Amino acid sequence: MYRKLQLVEEKRIQNARGGHGTTAMKHIFTEEEFGSSMTHLIFVTIPPGSSVGVHEHSGDEEVYFILEGQGRVWDDEKEYPVGPNDTVLTNSGHRHGIENTGKQDLRMLAIIGKVV
Amino acid sequence: MYRKLQLVEEKRIQNARGGHGTTAMKHIFTEEEFGSSMTHLIFVTIPPGSSVGVHEHSGDEEVYFILEGQGRVWDDEKEYPVGPNDTVLTNSGHRHGIENTGKQDLRMLAIIGKVV
Repeated sequence: MYRKLQLVEEKRIQNARGGHGTTAMKHIFTEEEFGSSMTHLIFVTIPPGSSVGVHEHSGDEEVYFILEGQGRVWDDEKEYPVGPNDTVLTNSGHRHGIENTGKQDLRMLAIIGKVV
Repeated sequence: MYRKLQLVEEKRIQNARGGHGTTAMKHIFTEEEFGSSMTHLIFVTIPPGSSVGVHEHSGDEEVYFILEGQGRVWDDEKEYPVGPNDTVLTNSGHRHGIENTGKQDLRMLAIIGKVV
């Protein structure tokens, strides 16, 4: 099953998870297309100064894989900078958020899987 | 849980799944670190002329997200070119493979989840 990113609809979300600014999301596959407990594969674009606010995952987990740009991640009580090819895994019961701290768009892949 | 790619050990595999040449793989997280049915998140580098041979997924599914380079994917009976930001989802019961058709390394993220 092939998906070309340019053909995936982009949705814009204001103040994602209570964060700042506008975040753009392309849901590359729908939950129905996965056969495993993966539910989301999302191409996320966070403009400079925007963020996805801190939120807890309960019953699922999420991976952020940074593709481009510079950001800051909140990972439970920790905060740290992230850049291309960095990965953050947030298991169920843990909290995370991310903001764009650079001058260019921050782009990442977000993968969510249900805990089974 | 934060992982910096440069610090992840790279493993080199000859003739991956019966393919050509040498493929390099960085397993960013181990199966034990995931709480969902995700089992693998792998940063894959396929040099020019190398490939991952065609193989069937049975009991799990795999996503290829192309990061850099140009390739050709076998997707069941179909074959097509892929490039950056293209995604291929291979559900359980289906077959896939990929070769590097360009002059630079082909890099992709491979995500595997068990069917539950």
